[in-house]
Amino acid sequence: MSRRRGPRRVRAPLAPTARKAGLEPGALVYTGIERDHEVKAHVTVYDSEGFDERLDAPLAVALAAIEATTVQPAGRVTWVDVGGVHDLDALRALGSALGLHPLTLEDLAHVGQRPKAEPFDTYLYVAARTLAVAPAVDGVAPALRDEQVSVVVRGALVVTFQERPSERFEAVRERVRRGHGRLRSGGAGYLLYALLDGVVDQGFVALEALSDELERLEDRVFDAATPKVLEQLVQLKRELAHLRRVASPTRELLAVLRRDAPAELGAVVLTDLRDVYDHAAHVLDATDVLREIAGSLQETYAANVANRTNEVVRVLTVFTAVFMPITFIAGVYGMNFWNMPEIAWRWGYAAVWGLMVVVTAGMLFWMRRRRFL
Amino acid sequence: MSRRRGPRRVRAPLAPTARKAGLEPGALVYTGIERDHEVKAHVTVYDSEGFDERLDAPLAVALAAIEATTVQPAGRVTWVDVGGVHDLDALRALGSALGLHPLTLEDLAHVGQRPKAEPFDTYLYVAARTLAVAPAVDGVAPALRDEQVSVVVRGALVVTFQERPSERFEAVRERVRRGHGRLRSGGAGYLLYALLDGVVDQGFVALEALSDELERLEDRVFDAATPKVLEQLVQLKRELAHLRRVASPTRELLAVLRRDAPAELGAVVLTDLRDVYDHAAHVLDATDVLREIAGSLQETYAANVANRTNEVVRVLTVFTAVFMPITFIAGVYGMNFWNMPEIAWRWGYAAVWGLMVVVTAGMLFWMRRRRFL
Amino acid sequence: MSRRRGPRRVRAPLAPTARKAGLEPGALVYTGIERDHEVKAHVTVYDSEGFDERLDAPLAVALAAIEATTVQPAGRVTWVDVGGVHDLDALRALGSALGLHPLTLEDLAHVGQRPKAEPFDTYLYVAARTLAVAPAVDGVAPALRDEQVSVVVRGALVVTFQERPSERFEAVRERVRRGHGRLRSGGAGYLLYALLDGVVDQGFVALEALSDELERLEDRVFDAATPKVLEQLVQLKRELAHLRRVASPTRELLAVLRRDAPAELGAVVLTDLRDVYDHAAHVLDATDVLREIAGSLQETYAANVANRTNEVVRVLTVFTAVFMPITFIAGVYGMNFWNMPEIAWRWGYAAVWGLMVVVTAGMLFWMRRRRFL
Amino acid sequence: MSRRRGPRRVRAPLAPTARKAGLEPGALVYTGIERDHEVKAHVTVYDSEGFDERLDAPLAVALAAIEATTVQPAGRVTWVDVGGVHDLDALRALGSALGLHPLTLEDLAHVGQRPKAEPFDTYLYVAARTLAVAPAVDGVAPALRDEQVSVVVRGALVVTFQERPSERFEAVRERVRRGHGRLRSGGAGYLLYALLDGVVDQGFVALEALSDELERLEDRVFDAATPKVLEQLVQLKRELAHLRRVASPTRELLAVLRRDAPAELGAVVLTDLRDVYDHAAHVLDATDVLREIAGSLQETYAANVANRTNEVVRVLTVFTAVFMPITFIAGVYGMNFWNMPEIAWRWGYAAVWGLMVVVTAGMLFWMRRRRFL
Amino acid sequence: MSRRRGPRRVRAPLAPTARKAGLEPGALVYTGIERDHEVKAHVTVYDSEGFDERLDAPLAVALAAIEATTVQPAGRVTWVDVGGVHDLDALRALGSALGLHPLTLEDLAHVGQRPKAEPFDTYLYVAARTLAVAPAVDGVAPALRDEQVSVVVRGALVVTFQERPSERFEAVRERVRRGHGRLRSGGAGYLLYALLDGVVDQGFVALEALSDELERLEDRVFDAATPKVLEQLVQLKRELAHLRRVASPTRELLAVLRRDAPAELGAVVLTDLRDVYDHAAHVLDATDVLREIAGSLQETYAANVANRTNEVVRVLTVFTAVFMPITFIAGVYGMNFWNMPEIAWRWGYAAVWGLMVVVTAGMLFWMRRRRFL
Repeated sequence: MSRRRGPRRVRAPLAPTARKAGLEPGALVYTGIERDHEVKAHVTVYDSEGFDERLDAPLAVALAAIEATTVQPAGRVTWVDVGGVHDLDALRALGSALGLHPLTLEDLAHVGQRPKAEPFDTYLYVAARTLAVAPAVDGVAPALRDEQVSVVVRGALVVTFQERPSERFEAVRERVRRGHGRLRSGGAGYLLYALLDGVVDQGFVALEALSDELERLEDRVFDAATPKVLEQLVQLKRELAHLRRVASPTRELLAVLRRDAPAELGAVVLTDLRDVYDHAAHVLDATDVLREIAGSLQETYAANVANRTNEVVRVLTVFTAVFMPITFIAGVYGMNFWNMPEIAWRWGYAAVWGLMVVVTAGMLFWMRRRRFL
Repeated sequence: MSRRRGPRRVRAPLAPTARKAGLEPGALVYTGIERDHEVKAHVTVYDSEGFDERLDAPLAVALAAIEATTVQPAGRVTWVDVGGVHDLDALRALGSALGLHPLTLEDLAHVGQRPKAEPFDTYLYVAARTLAVAPAVDGVAPALRDEQVSVVVRGALVVTFQERPSERFEAVRERVRRGHGRLRSGGAGYLLYALLDGVVDQGFVALEALSDELERLEDRVFDAATPKVLEQLVQLKRELAHLRRVASPTRELLAVLRRDAPAELGAVVLTDLRDVYDHAAHVLDATDVLREIAGSLQETYAANVANRTNEVVRVLTVFTAVFMPITFIAGVYGMNFWNMPEIAWRWGYAAVWGLMVVVTAGMLFWMRRRRFL
Repeated sequence: MSRRRGPRRVRAPLAPTARKAGLEPGALVYTGIERDHEVKAHVTVYDSEGFDERLDAPLAVALAAIEATTVQPAGRVTWVDVGGVHDLDALRALGSALGLHPLTLEDLAHVGQRPKAEPFDTYLYVAARTLAVAPAVDGVAPALRDEQVSVVVRGALVVTFQERPSERFEAVRERVRRGHGRLRSGGAGYLLYALLDGVVDQGFVALEALSDELERLEDRVFDAATPKVLEQLVQLKRELAHLRRVASPTRELLAVLRRDAPAELGAVVLTDLRDVYDHAAHVLDATDVLREIAGSLQETYAANVANRTNEVVRVLTVFTAVFMPITFIAGVYGMNFWNMPEIAWRWGYAAVWGLMVVVTAGMLFWMRRRRFL
Repeated sequence: MSRRRGPRRVRAPLAPTARKAGLEPGALVYTGIERDHEVKAHVTVYDSEGFDERLDAPLAVALAAIEATTVQPAGRVTWVDVGGVHDLDALRALGSALGLHPLTLEDLAHVGQRPKAEPFDTYLYVAARTLAVAPAVDGVAPALRDEQVSVVVRGALVVTFQERPSERFEAVRERVRRGHGRLRSGGAGYLLYALLDGVVDQGFVALEALSDELERLEDRVFDAATPKVLEQLVQLKRELAHLRRVASPTRELLAVLRRDAPAELGAVVLTDLRDVYDHAAHVLDATDVLREIAGSLQETYAANVANRTNEVVRVLTVFTAVFMPITFIAGVYGMNFWNMPEIAWRWGYAAVWGLMVVVTAGMLFWMRRRRFL
Repeated sequence: MSRRRGPRRVRAPLAPTARKAGLEPGALVYTGIERDHEVKAHVTVYDSEGFDERLDAPLAVALAAIEATTVQPAGRVTWVDVGGVHDLDALRALGSALGLHPLTLEDLAHVGQRPKAEPFDTYLYVAARTLAVAPAVDGVAPALRDEQVSVVVRGALVVTFQERPSERFEAVRERVRRGHGRLRSGGAGYLLYALLDGVVDQGFVALEALSDELERLEDRVFDAATPKVLEQLVQLKRELAHLRRVASPTRELLAVLRRDAPAELGAVVLTDLRDVYDHAAHVLDATDVLREIAGSLQETYAANVANRTNEVVRVLTVFTAVFMPITFIAGVYGMNFWNMPEIAWRWGYAAVWGLMVVVTAGMLFWMRRRRFL
């Protein structure tokens, strides 16, 4: 009955895209939440022999690294991790250095893309969405936030664009540094795979948070089905829909990559992509299971409310059926007629009490037989 | 309980089409809302060097421009934007100048078409629907209106047919005038793309309006679930169904264009069409998310009504259970039997009050244990 | 609570087919409603030059016309419109003259076919269903009736079989007579197209009737949700299901025709068939929209009943909560104890009235705060 | 509230299959209801010239007939109709004579197969299910029973396996005897078609029985919606699900046959199979329509219960609202205060009656305005 | 209202997978429930002539057997059944002996895989899930547990990996020992088939347990629809969803095997795989039927609660309608007006009793007519 308590997010997933409506196609407009930090980049160059890393490098360094890839020896991979897409001049400079199509440039800045993979003549463009979970606090369901991560693969050069600097890919960089596993020797294709694998794995983290919340709500639906529980359940269903909306095109994009992966990614990577694809399918399956359970809980909630009403009405009926008849009897002998023989009887009062006890017992017996008690 | 307040639109999307039933196929009948203004056209001729524009030109000028395209130099694009399809003579003249099939002519006048793209031998016919949002006023959900926009592409000639003159394509014309971007050099294919992009972008505007309304209703479902909220929710669901019905065949038509685009549109345009296709898919996805949320809200509304009934019945039961027993006791001592020993007792009255307090306390305790309070 | 008022049609669409079960395949049995009028036929022969027509001709004339097609000049089309399929001897004679497969003959007589198109070696068989709307009377939803219309196309000969003589194809015949449009010059393929177009257009008429009814019910669901409204809504849903069941295979049959149309229909007809296909798809779409709205109205109906119950219970609770306490007070001072000091007070009676007013005001205030009022 | 009345069949369709779990694949185990009659067979040999028939022949005769087919003249068809699959020795003998794969043998005995068609190198195996309807008695829905019928086609030899001797194929045998139609000249393929046609036609019989029951329940849902009606509706829905589960793979199997029919069935049979396929599709469509209607009735039932509760509560509220105020008034003047001036008034009693009438009239008027009456 | 009684398993199917999130791809981490027994293996070598078996052999023996397969004669099959995947060193040793891809190794240890079949260059990897049913105890629904079983087929070598030692494949080993059937002569392909057949058959066992539980709940829904029944129904639906989630990708994996089975499995095995595929499809079908029945029961439960509330409210209304009027009458003659003529009448008291009887009879008659009784 009081004002709403938690945040609501009907509009969020749509607003960024809508804000752009009316502009010409290919127009370069940043649609995310305004930011004004300087755009920096992490530049990592590695091959199976070693690696060279420059963190938080200014844009000029990143551009130089991109230029340098035209003459880099076979087996060497250059990875530029750009930490922001709000600075349109920086974006244009990168786009021109990479030879990006105007629409790709638009998609980079226009951060509400559906996940997709688009092979262009000279490069491969992948738009993905990473998920972060805002933990559940104080009865508010855990909320998912998603950000766009774009990957451009041109030969042995991989450029990632994040909405803001983050530690998201630090684990991959650490693996480059430590040099174990297949990462250092796997080429750009394997790096793409490692990045996408990290993105998909976040789906499992989100799933676990939502699954915990669902378990918590399930207990409450059976034990204390208040309107607040319903509201949280509805919120949870919305988060699950959100997760599904990210996971479903992600799986699609991986299917596209498996089918149409450019030759330069290397045949070996196909097996790896099948693996990420399986994970994405797993996330989607599990999301659908949770959605089904949440829907089932909502029905159960409704059934519990109906049960409770039934129980309350039964109590009401029992009281009414027991007291109405005997109150009526008392009313009868409260009448003031001059000629009421029972009134004057010696045992009249006792007899009326007896009658009342009999009536009450009869009512209780009858109601037990009808299972009202 | 009172008369309905808002407009209702069950029939609107069907009536125009139905009105034509019984006529012979290919019969030229205008099925829109009657209009009688003179049909004028905007004629724009441009190439990468410059442009020539004639606004609100009479039909003869448009026809001359169409004729002129048979001898126009390569790279020059002629765009005729016709502002009305109710004048069947004008339509026939245009159809004959363009060499349109009778069925295309019928589709132009018959303004309830599902969005579709049909390649003919000499031209490409595209029927699209633009959306406009009537803003929400005074508790009435925002209402979508859709109009038919047809595009005929024949070589470097693009003819658009709108139901009435509008500012809808003014932004595109402005881009022709300013000459920046790829529009002036992109040929007829790029113009088609720019027009379709504008049409699809209106879907985002509609989405945003409906999403705002949904957010507003969500607050009210949780705070003040009156029957009026339900009615608005049902209306909103209908508008979302309306949006879906426009967006779904639009996406289909873009898929057809991508797959079967005539060679003259140019290979470059395919990338652009993929972009519009992605936008249309995005609109459809987001519509489905809103529909799901609206459905979920309707269930929540029902649950809230049930909760509220439960609460009211609980109050009723509490009052009944508390007052019925003590009213009965009062009734007993209101009886007029001559032989009622308690009546004459000195502390009888006080004792009865005591009994009543005890009974009341007992009832309250029992009901608290059963969670009625 | 009273006996049902309108006709019900659960069984109708199934019975004709079921009646045949147990017979050998290919057995010639008429499964429609028995009729015994003499079977007559309209014979129309035309080419772009002129036409010759014989209405209500006896069977022999029809058979002669069919024979004559073996030697008819190119460009001439013969159309025989048979007005009944209950006379199995007549059917056998026609089948033998046309060289029909036994299963086709069975399908002609067996009038509960799903719409379908079947190319045979020497002819094309199309089974379609026409819809007629029995107008809504006196609170009964408009009821759809469907009849089978079969078309056999053999070269330039078109034979239509209707269940009974009707004016259904009179408009097409009129167009033959007037000779305008493409009908006279379009060959048998165009005639088939014109007939199917007429059949599909009846779907729009049915849609409009059901849409009007839905609009009427919508008003009543919000204004006066009686059980009768629900019953009509359920009936309407059934009619919509009926329409869907006819429209869906009709669209399928048109898709089959477009894909597998025999060469003799002519390539030109393909464009026309695409047009009818679009119309059929439109009918199906619109049917689904109406079905969704009807489903939504049924949910709304349920919600309104729940709301109304809630309101009634609230009134009940208010009365109980207001009157129970003060009735109890009155009961207390109706007790007959000898020692009740208040009874003898001068202002006792006035004080009790004051107490009652205070209690009542308190209850009303409390209930307003809990939004019961 | 009492014990259930009708049979229930949740488990039946599953148990036979489950009973076999744990056995090695290919193990020959009969999973039907135990039977111990001697297995006999009807042997029919026919060609377009004549026929030879041996009913209830012992197994040896059947085996001899099967042997004889290796040398039988072209055009002659041998049909062995085996009346039981519980005798595993008999089954093994037949399997060895026919050259069946161990898995086919297992499928013959394992009578819970989903309908399917499997072409093997030397023969075609078809597993179908026939339906029988136990008539509705005394408020119990008609119950479907299904049995497995297997058909093995090897060249011009057709062997059918039924779970028990039945009259199921007597109609086909009768047609062999009478020799009319295409049966005697159509070869083994046409015989297969005739058998499958008979199996599919039983779907129509089942449909009709369930449709009748649905019509009966529909009347009762609107007239007397007792819990028993609901229970019957739920049972009916289960039978419809049962029918669907048989009809759906039957349609699939016919699609497989049409697509992959072995060459020896003959091209002519393809047209016939298309016909049975259409019938199977028709059964499936009609089943889905009935399921939809049944689902709709269940919703209507719930709505009717809610309506009825609403009505009952309204009556309760009316009584309470009318009698509570006047009972209170009577209570007031039943108080025993010494100083109650109205008591002594000459017209006091009449005035109170007047007040009560006014209050009652006011309540009734107010409730009529709120549509409680 | 009390604490939950049974175990709940929302999270279980997800947790193992989620636990791995954040790790690099290909990282070898065991995600099952921790175990620390020594990993042993059953080694079985057989051909059509005989067999050699070593149960509970240490890892070295298994590795030696794997080595030995490089030189084993044609027709001999080696089957190594590994009883645990928690010992990562053992796993690495096996992976290196078998030449497994790092991702396969990861999948072996990562025991939450969706069932899948993946052909690699030198081997085939199959991940399946076996089901075990924890029997229903004391009103708790039977719970499904699933474990991962991986199969690697490399030429004539089959290696199975189970999460823990089990008797699961003892029946297959017994068939090897007894040597009957096609197992000893069927090669590695037939062994794979036998193993998968065993896995799929467990689905039937699970189905039967859930079907029994459903039957039990169905009785209770109709006889004693308590909240506990609803809770068990919800649990059962969850188990059915669990079963579906295992059965659906299992069917898929069998379809993949049938389509892409490596040549070395042998063509003969295709027929056998078709058989297992049919069984898996059967399990899936039956699961869907049970799910539908469970959903229908949940609706029935809700309808029964509504019916019961209706009944209770009706009793309440009857009592109110009968006693309120006569209690009012008694109240009237309990008033103390001096001038109440009826009071003094000789037969006043009797007349009031008469009036009360008449009013009561009238009320009962009226309520019977409205079907309240």
